[in-house]
Amino acid sequence: MTIPGPIDPPARLLMGPGPISAYPSVLRAMSAPLVGQYDPFMTHAMGETQELYRQVWGTTNDATVLIDGTSRAGIEAALVSLIRPGDRVLVPVFGRFGHLLAEIAERALAEVHTIETAWGQVFAPSAIEEAIVRVRPTLLALVQGDTSTTMNQPLGDIGAICAKHGVLFYSDATASLGGNDFEADAWGLDAATAGLQKCLGGPSGSAPLTLSERAVEVVRSRSKIEAGIREDGDASASDFVRSNYFDLGMILDYWGPRRLNHHTEATSMLYAARECARVLLLEGRDAAIERHRVAGAAMLAGVEALGLVVFGDVAHKMNNVVAVEIPEGVPGDAARQALLEDFGIEIGTSFGPLHGRVWRIGTMGYNARKDAVLTTLAALEAILRRFGAAVPAGAGVEAAADVFAGRG
Amino acid sequence: MTIPGPIDPPARLLMGPGPISAYPSVLRAMSAPLVGQYDPFMTHAMGETQELYRQVWGTTNDATVLIDGTSRAGIEAALVSLIRPGDRVLVPVFGRFGHLLAEIAERALAEVHTIETAWGQVFAPSAIEEAIVRVRPTLLALVQGDTSTTMNQPLGDIGAICAKHGVLFYSDATASLGGNDFEADAWGLDAATAGLQKCLGGPSGSAPLTLSERAVEVVRSRSKIEAGIREDGDASASDFVRSNYFDLGMILDYWGPRRLNHHTEATSMLYAARECARVLLLEGRDAAIERHRVAGAAMLAGVEALGLVVFGDVAHKMNNVVAVEIPEGVPGDAARQALLEDFGIEIGTSFGPLHGRVWRIGTMGYNARKDAVLTTLAALEAILRRFGAAVPAGAGVEAAADVFAGRG
Repeated sequence: MTIPGPIDPPARLLMGPGPISAYPSVLRAMSAPLVGQYDPFMTHAMGETQELYRQVWGTTNDATVLIDGTSRAGIEAALVSLIRPGDRVLVPVFGRFGHLLAEIAERALAEVHTIETAWGQVFAPSAIEEAIVRVRPTLLALVQGDTSTTMNQPLGDIGAICAKHGVLFYSDATASLGGNDFEADAWGLDAATAGLQKCLGGPSGSAPLTLSERAVEVVRSRSKIEAGIREDGDASASDFVRSNYFDLGMILDYWGPRRLNHHTEATSMLYAARECARVLLLEGRDAAIERHRVAGAAMLAGVEALGLVVFGDVAHKMNNVVAVEIPEGVPGDAARQALLEDFGIEIGTSFGPLHGRVWRIGTMGYNARKDAVLTTLAALEAILRRFGAAVPAGAGVEAAADVFAGRG
Repeated sequence: MTIPGPIDPPARLLMGPGPISAYPSVLRAMSAPLVGQYDPFMTHAMGETQELYRQVWGTTNDATVLIDGTSRAGIEAALVSLIRPGDRVLVPVFGRFGHLLAEIAERALAEVHTIETAWGQVFAPSAIEEAIVRVRPTLLALVQGDTSTTMNQPLGDIGAICAKHGVLFYSDATASLGGNDFEADAWGLDAATAGLQKCLGGPSGSAPLTLSERAVEVVRSRSKIEAGIREDGDASASDFVRSNYFDLGMILDYWGPRRLNHHTEATSMLYAARECARVLLLEGRDAAIERHRVAGAAMLAGVEALGLVVFGDVAHKMNNVVAVEIPEGVPGDAARQALLEDFGIEIGTSFGPLHGRVWRIGTMGYNARKDAVLTTLAALEAILRRFGAAVPAGAGVEAAADVFAGRG
């Protein structure tokens, strides 16, 4: 074979639903030299990363770690460690990622019950409580932000409902964390997971996770120590987690003071995750969320000013992504391709019932910026015009600029 | 909290059993900008990476991909996708990682049978065949190189034995691939997995995996498509893999022409994995293995010349790691710590029955180099002397230099 040259990606402004362009300092962090997995520098960096993510999550949970894999790995680690085969699990589904939680819970042999709402809507807390009363689950698994519909499910009242009914409360905050409010402790979360490739502005491949003490107890009650490193006196549960890689008991023993060998921590991804949190906290968590709010509002104003119809319940939209109906007569994929090829700008297609009907445009992480928003709107206007849509000249850019200027 | 500064690792020469210092070009590759997961550049880079790893593995297997996680994630993906609950699995154990394969197979609800040999030894093919005849497993899971003992299990005859008895043949080549011979097709492998952090000279966090057509058939017979992206006509097996993240059927559909959404490929780790294979193939796979052989022989000659006793069956040692008994009276951990603090050089401790008895010294990937070997031996001599061991001055360095000069 001919051996290809060094990786040399084209210039891209990633304005889809994620992954998005990483913060430059996150990319730089990944090129830092490796150290050994028990090097004092490494264990210190792991500890710093835990502390940084406690701030990001809004928690004092000791059990705040990274899972070495994509955001989906974090979801599976939480679910497979918390669900015993046969457990009843309730999953309110308001988009693709609710289906994913249900599917992962099924793989963990849960008895899965779902409630569904139309794509583009969220659930009222009362609907979730009603289902909890009916299903009597051990675990509620609820997506916060589902990029497939752009909706942001309010979580503020759910923790108290779960506590009242003795239900563990897990949320998948992959798409929302860092760009929308999330308060793990104040909202009564028992488990939450995320990824770096959305509002945290890093690459996919590391999944922040946090567990309450109650969740840790469940995980610990199923703990198992590998035969190859087990010592006399170590217990090994028979009710074990049906995964070694995702056994949170083992993962906590690796991150915790025992430092029991499990996987070899993905050093470069740890560096990336650490830098993502560092960038967020240097800006200030609330300031970063506000930046996402403004950028999202500007993009929303811009697409509306271009005459595009926004999909879903805008009052419950995530800050960081908007879905717009593809105008009648415009070939959605060809237009997206032209935007990519001629402007280097990526926007997203859609899944399931929205496939071919809407585009999804993101404003997250590093790209929740004025220049990124205005550039995208200018390019989108040009592409829409090229494909025959009637668009008011300059209106998208002006409307967005007004929002950034505080006039929106 | 005080927000720590950018990641700034100390200078380290990683001469343990892995992770080891990455090739500089691999570190640089990870700082390349991100692209979208269906960007033509991305799918092309995924295809290039598959083709590069076919060369690394010595295979024409179409199903040659990366698993987004550490080497252990690759092992679990292979085992959980190939093992149906209740399947008999045979695991010959000659060190810690044999125990790990057994443990992961147990989690997949296999009926696991092990045979064991003393740490420091490997199995004769006849012993494995005898156990296959007795156990009648559906799968043989065999580590190639086990860093816990430094042994390299010969695999050349095992594939034919497995084929004769209708057994699937899986090997974990994490510690060995790229520094020791491995021929997936010629040796009759049905599945093999690895990691980047050993002889491939990259960071932990991506696991190359290859599957034969026979293994793909097993995986495909259990395929499942997520509800959120399923289309009419897509089948969904009831005999499903007990993991979504590690369901190789889904992973192959993501890497294959259907490009069905599963996880979001860890872009930066893909760049790293691609560069690891590129570096290896630019040097030439056989040349890289020979470099590991020479560096390993030099390190072996060096430690012997320092008067250290080598552990295990040296004739079956991996090229890339050697274990030496900690001399009587030398405090093993304090000496390792001094080597790290005063010289920035890391060597490894040990697990299980060897804990506290031996150090493990690696020569792999980027660090399978003359200067790395000689520097390590010079520093080790100084440290041994400091802790009271009688060591012949300069003998280690000279013996190793002789090997590099072809006089060994």
